[in-house]
Amino acid sequence: MSKFATATKRLVLGRPFRSDRLAHTLLPKRIALPVFASDPMSSVAYAPEEILLMLSVAGASAYVYSPWIGLVVALVMVAVVASYRQNVRAYTSGGGDYEVATVNHGPRWGLAVGSALLVDYILTVAVSIASAAANIGSAVPFVATHKVAFAVAAILLLMAVNLRGVRESGTAFAIPSYAFVAGILAMILWGAIQTFVLGDAPRAESADLELVAEEHHLTGFAFVFLILRAFSSGSAALTGVEAIANGVPAFRKPKGRNAATTLLMMGTLAITMFLGLLFLANVTGAVMAEHPGEQLINAPEGYEQKTLVAQLAGAVFAGFPPAMWYVIFFTGLILVLAANTAFNGFPVLGSILAQDRFLPRQLHTRGDRLAFSNGILFLAGFAIVLVIAFNAEVTALIQLYIVGVFVSFVLSQSGMIRHWNRLLRTETDPAARRRMRRAQAINSFGLFMTASVLVVILVTKFLAGAWISIVSMAAIYFLMGAIRKHYDRVAQELKEDESEPVTLPARNHAIVLVSQLHRPTLRALAYAKATRPDILEAVTVNVDDADTRRLVDSWDKHGFSIPLKVVESPYREVTRPVLDYVRRIRGDHPRNVVTVFIPEYVVGHWWEQLLHNQSALRLKGRLLFQSRVMVTSVPWQLESSKYASRRAEAAHPVAGDVRRGLFDLTRGPDGGGKGQGSGR
Amino acid sequence: MSKFATATKRLVLGRPFRSDRLAHTLLPKRIALPVFASDPMSSVAYAPEEILLMLSVAGASAYVYSPWIGLVVALVMVAVVASYRQNVRAYTSGGGDYEVATVNHGPRWGLAVGSALLVDYILTVAVSIASAAANIGSAVPFVATHKVAFAVAAILLLMAVNLRGVRESGTAFAIPSYAFVAGILAMILWGAIQTFVLGDAPRAESADLELVAEEHHLTGFAFVFLILRAFSSGSAALTGVEAIANGVPAFRKPKGRNAATTLLMMGTLAITMFLGLLFLANVTGAVMAEHPGEQLINAPEGYEQKTLVAQLAGAVFAGFPPAMWYVIFFTGLILVLAANTAFNGFPVLGSILAQDRFLPRQLHTRGDRLAFSNGILFLAGFAIVLVIAFNAEVTALIQLYIVGVFVSFVLSQSGMIRHWNRLLRTETDPAARRRMRRAQAINSFGLFMTASVLVVILVTKFLAGAWISIVSMAAIYFLMGAIRKHYDRVAQELKEDESEPVTLPARNHAIVLVSQLHRPTLRALAYAKATRPDILEAVTVNVDDADTRRLVDSWDKHGFSIPLKVVESPYREVTRPVLDYVRRIRGDHPRNVVTVFIPEYVVGHWWEQLLHNQSALRLKGRLLFQSRVMVTSVPWQLESSKYASRRAEAAHPVAGDVRRGLFDLTRGPDGGGKGQGSGR
Repeated sequence: MSKFATATKRLVLGRPFRSDRLAHTLLPKRIALPVFASDPMSSVAYAPEEILLMLSVAGASAYVYSPWIGLVVALVMVAVVASYRQNVRAYTSGGGDYEVATVNHGPRWGLAVGSALLVDYILTVAVSIASAAANIGSAVPFVATHKVAFAVAAILLLMAVNLRGVRESGTAFAIPSYAFVAGILAMILWGAIQTFVLGDAPRAESADLELVAEEHHLTGFAFVFLILRAFSSGSAALTGVEAIANGVPAFRKPKGRNAATTLLMMGTLAITMFLGLLFLANVTGAVMAEHPGEQLINAPEGYEQKTLVAQLAGAVFAGFPPAMWYVIFFTGLILVLAANTAFNGFPVLGSILAQDRFLPRQLHTRGDRLAFSNGILFLAGFAIVLVIAFNAEVTALIQLYIVGVFVSFVLSQSGMIRHWNRLLRTETDPAARRRMRRAQAINSFGLFMTASVLVVILVTKFLAGAWISIVSMAAIYFLMGAIRKHYDRVAQELKEDESEPVTLPARNHAIVLVSQLHRPTLRALAYAKATRPDILEAVTVNVDDADTRRLVDSWDKHGFSIPLKVVESPYREVTRPVLDYVRRIRGDHPRNVVTVFIPEYVVGHWWEQLLHNQSALRLKGRLLFQSRVMVTSVPWQLESSKYASRRAEAAHPVAGDVRRGLFDLTRGPDGGGKGQGSGR
Repeated sequence: MSKFATATKRLVLGRPFRSDRLAHTLLPKRIALPVFASDPMSSVAYAPEEILLMLSVAGASAYVYSPWIGLVVALVMVAVVASYRQNVRAYTSGGGDYEVATVNHGPRWGLAVGSALLVDYILTVAVSIASAAANIGSAVPFVATHKVAFAVAAILLLMAVNLRGVRESGTAFAIPSYAFVAGILAMILWGAIQTFVLGDAPRAESADLELVAEEHHLTGFAFVFLILRAFSSGSAALTGVEAIANGVPAFRKPKGRNAATTLLMMGTLAITMFLGLLFLANVTGAVMAEHPGEQLINAPEGYEQKTLVAQLAGAVFAGFPPAMWYVIFFTGLILVLAANTAFNGFPVLGSILAQDRFLPRQLHTRGDRLAFSNGILFLAGFAIVLVIAFNAEVTALIQLYIVGVFVSFVLSQSGMIRHWNRLLRTETDPAARRRMRRAQAINSFGLFMTASVLVVILVTKFLAGAWISIVSMAAIYFLMGAIRKHYDRVAQELKEDESEPVTLPARNHAIVLVSQLHRPTLRALAYAKATRPDILEAVTVNVDDADTRRLVDSWDKHGFSIPLKVVESPYREVTRPVLDYVRRIRGDHPRNVVTVFIPEYVVGHWWEQLLHNQSALRLKGRLLFQSRVMVTSVPWQLESSKYASRRAEAAHPVAGDVRRGLFDLTRGPDGGGKGQGSGR
């Protein structure tokens, strides 16, 4: 052994990339915007509507408050965007809120952020798909009458696409996102021109309906409560802002600054669309009732309330239906894209949590299709449960939403304040200190705003559904804590123990399990010999007297230099006699090691696995429970194994790749950009 | 290696039996009768009733044919019992009809018998439980109104008991079986005494009901068809006779003769009970309608037709209800026992089919709880489907039944005729020849009778449901054929090939996979050294730069004589970089063998398995696809593995043990009989 140097070599594989593999490709801002902003921008499709629906409880007169509520939401949005511009400059590794909370408040708080975001991803899917169903239902009545079925089918479709491994590309995001933004902005602009320039304001189809308040005599306190509730529903417009903070590594350099600029662009667009839609709703006189059947007394027979976006598009583009269809179609599409975002973000977050051992370790490795699949199934399953339980009603689902996001906002912003405090303690350059002070002030303002909103949300939504989210977060929090504890305990158990040095085994007693004398057995015998054990013997279990006799005869005829021992098994068991035998030879020489060679068939189809290896697998599993026993599989590749081998060679993309800056080489946004080599 | 003798040693383990293990214990006739005859005897609980129900279609006047039909069924029973007495003397190994058909007609016919019996086991469960529900429902109205639910619950209970592993004992069978026989015989006897001695024949509760024919003007041919249909339903009394043929090994010596005597006892009892019940039905004037609601025009409001056994017990024991309850209770119990019989017989038959490689090989080993469990789940699942699909109606289910049994009868009896022909060809002793001729005549008579019945069944029941059974048999037949073909192809592929001798590998290149420097890794390194490979190196995958740097530092500090190689993994994959690395070192030296040592954690709970070893397992699975690679698991037993180890030590009995002559040592029928040593 001494002829090998003790120096550690760093080995770089010769051909690190194949044509079917992925390479790091960084996103320009014009692509990063649609990739990361589809989620926050899509929420303007339902947030303004939810404000009107909440206000409708107090009657149409309450609509006068909607612009003011909109302005406050916009103010919070400004504060959040400004704060996150600090975050992305300070933390460019992509850990997002989780990282900020962990570094500045400790891992327990980071875990709280992780739990909150996991729950929120599920709700993003449910809310976005429910809203997509409502919007598409406004144009296609069949979808409206089968809303739940449509939503479930859409989630199943997204699940299937993500399980299969969709080749994400920036283009796939860019076109619908920009088309949506362009459509909404054009609608707002044309509506404004009609109103102010042509002096002929568009009228919504519901403008003439008479809205009856559900609660007629709201006292002062109850009325304030209603306003606050409308405000917290409108805050749904802020969801998804943190997505960019998780995606910093995918930006081109300087990453932090580019991400900050993209955040600014996203914020500007989202606020413009959000306020513009509220303005149009005011101008067109659109009437949205929380319970249309009861509140709209002069509605025509069979009146189906359309979504706000659909009504506005219908009013503004009254003379040109294709434009209306365009707006509704791209609104539905961006909502589906937002749901898909959750399918991508969920496994990425899971992988970050797994790195810190809060989730099973294998979630951390990108290649683990199974782990990713489980995550996707989990996400889809829970989203479907929510959609069915809440009848695909956005208004009901939104009560559960955003509490998670705001928990994350608050912990992240307060973490940033600590971050600056820490830096300020050592920083002496006055200019740098000034910059830090300013950034800290922005984060403090962000904390103040988001904490206030969180309190409003908790007060106004707790009983309406937020408690479900909070209970779920707590459950996930404790589960992840328990997983971490388990890993820590195991790590402690496994730590190198100086007092108990690992000794070199005295002798290696090898046994080869033999059932028949065929080529896999011969190979196993040859390999076992090649390991030059101190003792080598073949062992067979006598399950059938006639078979055993045949085996013994051909063994003797063959003239092996290895003795064959026959272990009796009166009940045709295989496992227990071998276990007993190994226990005996192991017991005789306590410093010996026993190596058990098991010839194994490698097959190509799952059903072949049912027909082969079952005894070997069970035996292997049981043998490992004995100490000082090694189990060696000597594979024999059956012809059919080639199929499986070929199948496994075909690499699939994995959900979330684009968000991590991993792109398909052949179809990346740069149009077949070359890989950046193997550097990291 | 040469210091080891090439002689083959037969090793007998020192302590072959523990107190919690099983031993061979052979059954005396008085125990064998209830163990094997509960199934055939229980069928008298529904066979006479089905005759009356079929006849009822033509009105009460058709009841006059019931004694004659009963006599023909009894005649067939005599023929079958006489035939099987020949079978059990000639074939004592327990293969039953399957063996007889395989040996005398070839494996394809044996397979047909196997398929037929597998289907029949499912129907035994469905019919017996449905009949049990009807009988118990006759005493407990709640069961009658929830018949399907009761039947499904009973099957699930049997399933659970058999999955858990019930400690079968002869006593558990003996008491209910003898109690049932005693009850029925006492009922018949007391009914006869009332009729003939006291001159006061008992009257059934339905005796005064007026039965209206469903088909009023049956033509001659249609009437014959009806009679034949009633006959074939009555033939259900013959099911289960073959059970004793499968159980010969469990009998005391002389096995064949004892089994033949037991068959005779069973046949006598079954015929007596069967004819006795038909006699009582005649005497008491019991009226059984196939569709009580339509056919019984003067029935009182809410009349629920009870089973024949319940009506007869009510009539005979009119003055003493406890006796009536006794008969009904033990009738229900023996029917449940008969269903349990199928739960025991199904895995035994599966194990015989697996021995001939028609079913996955692991079914052959007794110890395989998983395989047995799958068989039990399969049986229960299909029985539940049948019970629900046919609304737990015995009359409907019985149309699917017995076609399988009679296919098996016919193939077995015709096989026996060939058997005697073969023996007669060489036999010269006149006395022996005479005996054989006589046995052959008996089997020929059996063949004639069973073939006739099979034709009648096929003609009268094909459209009524038997086609379902036949299609199922065909499907199972082809599936088992395909499995056998697969095993044959693999065996061909694996056969020792003289032209391609297995060469001893030139060099053994060992690599130890390292993720951290903890005790499992140290042990793996020590073990790998102990196998004295030609090249030994440690390999780690760089998933995380910081972790890898830490590992490399402590490696260097430790001063190992083994070099540590770092394999780059730009995408945090573990599997692929290792596969590529192994492929490279394997490729460099085509006659080398690569041994990959994987440290593995052994855990005690299934959820821990989710948290550990996932990467190792996947890697192992993929490595085996490469030729000339051995994979060695070096286990590290975590503290928690002790639980699992303890759990696995507790041996459970397996369904079907009693039928194979395997008995619990502590609770066997001999009251703790001593094991027969380890001899076979």
